[in-house]
Amino acid sequence: MTTASSPGQLTREQRESLLYRLAQDYRDLNGTNVEVWTHTPSSIEFARIVNVGRPVLFRDTPNANELPALTKWTDDHLVTAMRDRKVTIAVTPNGRADALHTLPNGARYFVEPHTEQMTMEELFQAIQKSERDAFNEHASDSELSPELLADVPREIPWASEALGRTPDAVNVWIGGSRSVTSVHSDPYENIYSVIRGSKHFTLLPPTEGYTLREQRVPHAKYTRPAPSSPLEIEAIPDSTVRWAEVDPTLSSISDTAPMKVTVKAGDALYLPAGWWHHVAQSGDRESGVCIAVNWWYDVEMRGMTWTWMSFLRRMGAPDGEDDEV
Amino acid sequence: MTTASSPGQLTREQRESLLYRLAQDYRDLNGTNVEVWTHTPSSIEFARIVNVGRPVLFRDTPNANELPALTKWTDDHLVTAMRDRKVTIAVTPNGRADALHTLPNGARYFVEPHTEQMTMEELFQAIQKSERDAFNEHASDSELSPELLADVPREIPWASEALGRTPDAVNVWIGGSRSVTSVHSDPYENIYSVIRGSKHFTLLPPTEGYTLREQRVPHAKYTRPAPSSPLEIEAIPDSTVRWAEVDPTLSSISDTAPMKVTVKAGDALYLPAGWWHHVAQSGDRESGVCIAVNWWYDVEMRGMTWTWMSFLRRMGAPDGEDDEV
Repeated sequence: MTTASSPGQLTREQRESLLYRLAQDYRDLNGTNVEVWTHTPSSIEFARIVNVGRPVLFRDTPNANELPALTKWTDDHLVTAMRDRKVTIAVTPNGRADALHTLPNGARYFVEPHTEQMTMEELFQAIQKSERDAFNEHASDSELSPELLADVPREIPWASEALGRTPDAVNVWIGGSRSVTSVHSDPYENIYSVIRGSKHFTLLPPTEGYTLREQRVPHAKYTRPAPSSPLEIEAIPDSTVRWAEVDPTLSSISDTAPMKVTVKAGDALYLPAGWWHHVAQSGDRESGVCIAVNWWYDVEMRGMTWTWMSFLRRMGAPDGEDDEV
Repeated sequence: MTTASSPGQLTREQRESLLYRLAQDYRDLNGTNVEVWTHTPSSIEFARIVNVGRPVLFRDTPNANELPALTKWTDDHLVTAMRDRKVTIAVTPNGRADALHTLPNGARYFVEPHTEQMTMEELFQAIQKSERDAFNEHASDSELSPELLADVPREIPWASEALGRTPDAVNVWIGGSRSVTSVHSDPYENIYSVIRGSKHFTLLPPTEGYTLREQRVPHAKYTRPAPSSPLEIEAIPDSTVRWAEVDPTLSSISDTAPMKVTVKAGDALYLPAGWWHHVAQSGDRESGVCIAVNWWYDVEMRGMTWTWMSFLRRMGAPDGEDDEV
């Protein structure tokens, strides 16, 4: 659907034609594979990887010396170390936190998960017996006990040295097999280590983001009106969110070649800033839990990276323009 | 001048509007200064510099231990070391090698310099007494004596380690104050060390290349019909060259902020792949000669750099399309 445009402005058709060509050029040069390394990179090796800006799977690295959580974080250890501390849990009826949802009346919303406070023991029980709801924890430093924090280094030395900075955030993610993160991109260089279970990434380069058709949609959240009642969707007035319409794990996308990579316990994934990722997960054998840790490093704002990311985002928007994030 | 376009294709006005916005965004984030370092970077520091992809002036580095030519290459030493060896000299009547030239009849050509063979002694004499012609030597390995080659390392260790490769070429440039290199860009990461005299760079980022208005023009070369006659321009039939119309050292360019940097004897400049550069020079006090050495490292083809460089070149072309280089 093209629209009339003032001089200099582009129609949607023109923008898509331009983005299609860029995506093809990028893919012709780079292929669609995820590089696999079987050793920890040196800082100079990782700097070269960042310079290329493509995902790399580090198989069986970092090791347990570098990341003690890899061997220490059994259910028992986590429950004991956390005792009565409560963590904030994201709850949805379908496992899809931060995702688009269509109501029976046809209205389409971006729906935030409901949040509940529970102990680690309650979380594990909820994940194991969950039939109706899916649970996902994203723990920040303030929620973890000092004992658990000691099992996760504050930084990845080779990444910090290559990037010339320390991480902006270190996060712990705990969930079950039903939890899914819908496709999005982050302005961070991301090192993603799986501790238990597996994470299944579907990746698209920044140049293919336009195929996901971000739209601005009304904003809603899940709520639980009473302690034992089912979750309901409640609109948040006067609020909209820009989010991808298309699910890259479904077969219907044209012009893209999503890259699939499974990150198992003991592996780490380098996910470059601006790469689109959909993440599903499998729980482990112990209790069906998937646990991961990631280090987010701020993207380098100097140079071209940020300028190109803004360009691709702007050109891929419904009206070819920026809007507030 | 806009032209009708088929769906998806852009008019020149649309392309320029898009490129203008990109250039502004890049400049807003990066400013227009050339970073100055006063020490040799480590390989990891240089890897971060390459990742940012902006020029850096390394003042008083590399030192004479790393680059013996810095202290050894007097006129006497060069003449003695080269003896009767002849080198290939680029000769033009105006110092502008590889540049556009308008004939009295109004025809515009890209004109290659005339080349002549002479000894180093003859070159120095020609540079010192040149009134009519300007001389510039670009020596490859095969033309320099082994004694001189030993004064120029085959690679820059911190650059090779950061880039994960050795240089594709090492070049020696010898000329006088009248020689000028017209604005162009290269697909190489470039380390440029000045040995004697000074080089005056005028730089534009890849995003501002479109303001230089590359055009496809007929191809010609300077020739000297008889040994002592003046140089003449001779057209090369059926050959055209894509070259920048605009001289960024003149004041008339709109929408750009050319960056100026003087690289003195003992300094080195990192000139990132794809950056547009115009180079003038000043001879030194000994004999009015300017000598420089540069190391060209192939640009990384993986990742986005090459894709974006192609995009900018295509969008900046007169018809918005690629053409053969």
